[in-house]
Amino acid sequence: PAVPRGRGCAGWREVVPTCERYAVRRLPFGRLEGRDVAFFERLMPGRVLTGEEEVRPFNVDWLRSVRGCSQLVLKPQTTAEVSQVLRYCYEKNLAVNPQGGNTGLVGGSVPVFDEIILSTALMNQIISFDKVSGILVCQAGCVLERLNEYLEEQGFIMPLDLGAKGSCHIGGNVATNAGGLRLLRYGSLRGTVLGLEVVLADGSALDCLTSLRKDNTGYDLKQLFIGSEGTLGVITAVSILCPQKPRAVNVAFLGCQSFDKVLETFTTCRAMLGEILSAYEFMDEKCMELVERHLKLSSPVAGSPFYVLIETSGSNSTHDEEKLNNFLERAMASGLVADGTVATDDKKIKASHLRERITEALTHEGYVYKYDISLPVAKLYDLVTDMRARLGHSAKNVVGYGHLGDGNLHLNITAESYSHSLLDAIEPFVYEWTARCSGSISAEHGLGFKKKQFIQYSKPREAVVLMQHFKAMLDPKGILNPYKTLPSAP
Amino acid sequence: PAVPRGRGCAGWREVVPTCERYAVRRLPFGRLEGRDVAFFERLMPGRVLTGEEEVRPFNVDWLRSVRGCSQLVLKPQTTAEVSQVLRYCYEKNLAVNPQGGNTGLVGGSVPVFDEIILSTALMNQIISFDKVSGILVCQAGCVLERLNEYLEEQGFIMPLDLGAKGSCHIGGNVATNAGGLRLLRYGSLRGTVLGLEVVLADGSALDCLTSLRKDNTGYDLKQLFIGSEGTLGVITAVSILCPQKPRAVNVAFLGCQSFDKVLETFTTCRAMLGEILSAYEFMDEKCMELVERHLKLSSPVAGSPFYVLIETSGSNSTHDEEKLNNFLERAMASGLVADGTVATDDKKIKASHLRERITEALTHEGYVYKYDISLPVAKLYDLVTDMRARLGHSAKNVVGYGHLGDGNLHLNITAESYSHSLLDAIEPFVYEWTARCSGSISAEHGLGFKKKQFIQYSKPREAVVLMQHFKAMLDPKGILNPYKTLPSAP
Repeated sequence: PAVPRGRGCAGWREVVPTCERYAVRRLPFGRLEGRDVAFFERLMPGRVLTGEEEVRPFNVDWLRSVRGCSQLVLKPQTTAEVSQVLRYCYEKNLAVNPQGGNTGLVGGSVPVFDEIILSTALMNQIISFDKVSGILVCQAGCVLERLNEYLEEQGFIMPLDLGAKGSCHIGGNVATNAGGLRLLRYGSLRGTVLGLEVVLADGSALDCLTSLRKDNTGYDLKQLFIGSEGTLGVITAVSILCPQKPRAVNVAFLGCQSFDKVLETFTTCRAMLGEILSAYEFMDEKCMELVERHLKLSSPVAGSPFYVLIETSGSNSTHDEEKLNNFLERAMASGLVADGTVATDDKKIKASHLRERITEALTHEGYVYKYDISLPVAKLYDLVTDMRARLGHSAKNVVGYGHLGDGNLHLNITAESYSHSLLDAIEPFVYEWTARCSGSISAEHGLGFKKKQFIQYSKPREAVVLMQHFKAMLDPKGILNPYKTLPSAP
Repeated sequence: PAVPRGRGCAGWREVVPTCERYAVRRLPFGRLEGRDVAFFERLMPGRVLTGEEEVRPFNVDWLRSVRGCSQLVLKPQTTAEVSQVLRYCYEKNLAVNPQGGNTGLVGGSVPVFDEIILSTALMNQIISFDKVSGILVCQAGCVLERLNEYLEEQGFIMPLDLGAKGSCHIGGNVATNAGGLRLLRYGSLRGTVLGLEVVLADGSALDCLTSLRKDNTGYDLKQLFIGSEGTLGVITAVSILCPQKPRAVNVAFLGCQSFDKVLETFTTCRAMLGEILSAYEFMDEKCMELVERHLKLSSPVAGSPFYVLIETSGSNSTHDEEKLNNFLERAMASGLVADGTVATDDKKIKASHLRERITEALTHEGYVYKYDISLPVAKLYDLVTDMRARLGHSAKNVVGYGHLGDGNLHLNITAESYSHSLLDAIEPFVYEWTARCSGSISAEHGLGFKKKQFIQYSKPREAVVLMQHFKAMLDPKGILNPYKTLPSAP
């Protein structure tokens, strides 16, 4: 698991409360009273956290970049309990912050003020799995890696995989429309999620938990909740189509002398590997340096300005190795690739870790400014180069890596500590640059708290207004994950 | 093209007007006046049809099962024109029936009363195609087969394929969330459609026409329009991710002695063909008989109770043939398959036609009662058997075929002509049967006019109410494709 556990509260006091750092005004929600806590304790005895120490880890995000001041964590086990909690909160006008594994990167998963934290941690039951269809139905709090382990035993895998898999919840994955490493092969959650059960702001449950690959009866309501970051409803259960576990997985790790060669290698690789290509990831040499320094991992190939990780997944290992070796031969003979290795089982894991653990390595460098951008692939690395030139010595590192196959760049900038002036040098420059290329200012991380005011760089005004109408219709009091995703209504 | 052209109006008079057959009440929309027609003629001179003969083919569906009495067809060429038309109609409270290729099977694409027909026939321009990313952007009226031909020249294909490809428009495909033959491999339109441009009921244009594989900035509004059958907005342009054209396509045609063997063959085939499996279709012997009789096609294998069409698409023909031959050998040796053939290029086309042209063959039998059902695969054919037993001699044919790989059954019942009593014997029996298995009463055809009152068999009341709220929000006067998709608001 790439997300280290137990970082817990060490240093949490250094995290400036979000409402102070960002000068946000609290909305006129009700304030938690003793009788409210008493109600919840009757409803779910032993699963109500109120002590400052107990609540603390739920108030701070994994990056330690934002901090709320909630006094209450609720841990329901059933959809009925979630319904009762929301019905009560809706009536009393109490704001609620749904929280999965708290691995989000944009401040969407922790409160801004004193919102009640509704944790899905105890909603971790698998409801059913059908081996013929490959359809899994489970509660929202199941940890992604646990689900994958369960499926592997039956010859299947989850259609998504990401660095935070050891902690993130499937409900949170769906609520944020998580992408990750397998998207290139198995597509987005918008295609693989077949059904959802959702509790709406007023406590009513919406049962769209069907397990059918095709269903064209009316509007596809579940889509609205996928990627809505807990602002329209609380996802309580998920039905998802899982692919068969590939019999053969191969990994190649390559070094390239320029980003142009990374791109050309991608085109060649897609043509030669075709249907077995399951990931095409890149990282720059700075990323490699940080992973080597902080995590003591080592590169399997000679030093290069860029590295590429290719994964293939197929049903016949002989065929797949033949395809991969043919590709690598051609790529090296034509000078596209300077050094490359097709990984054996042991090395396979190491090579994947290099890429997966960049996020973790970066946190050792101090404060991290994270940007998750979609761009036309040809321009993907220009943003890193431009940013590096712009910031000069005011940043410690400016690094780029990401899912090249999906046109998705993770641009990360580190500094010893948070500074307003550095932020001002980065933003809105990074968003304006992206908007000029018709890119997305959030490819997969979502908007959460930190990016919501930048939505207009990727969406026209009419679209934002329509989103606000949806929010007002589904959550008229605005109690669900307030201060997140959308700019406040005009 | 499986949809024969030029059937035109032969026999159209036999089609009873929908409002008579179904005893529908006209809603209090405005009535078309001379000055309205004059307005439209000024707006798009030469692209306004008013003559009875000219308008007729747009009033009757392809199955000749429903018939409206519109007096006006408009053929805009641009999004701006669609905007102006809808702004005008919205103001005057005139109802509008958006129409693509008019190949729908549930009466969604023709008017019920005198709705103005807004045809996308002249919105047929390709806007852009990016060979690196495989992203196509085009107007809504492009014919699916034309798009596929255009892409094939550049080494790509459309991610969907269906019998009506020679006539259907991509805008209509998206508006109805069309499935078809390639869904098993390339997933649904919910994953492959990257962006949409939509004109809302009041004439305002919503530009979500992005070309990014990943974009998590706010709610995914375009999803609401996918599958909404023109009731929430008129799709004017589409951005869609297209797969590379597979270098090797192989087809196998098999005969099986029972439906259980069809199922077991599927499991074996999925395991052995893995990532190259692109279609698994089945048909019963009755389908074969009709295709042979009416279309003079002949079966490539010995007579069997069931037939299976398997398609593989891959990047290496040697590898793929090896996989397919290994599979066929095993399937025949183990007695799963009674007779089978791996098709060469010429036969390939014939074998696909057999499956694709069943819809057409059925129309030669008289009136066709069409059902498009999602079920757990194990129960898929039981519905056909039960229905056949139930109807006895009152039906001419009861046949089953479909996309077994997706759990999708096409159940078709034919009779010399439409009869109320036969319909009463079929419905609601077929819907109750489906609901008992938690299936969908419309897997891919949508609800349109003919199925809308049955939505509750597949969706809970709360979901339908929420859909009605969305409709009321986006189209407060209800002018867009009225009498379709949703039951009237309470």
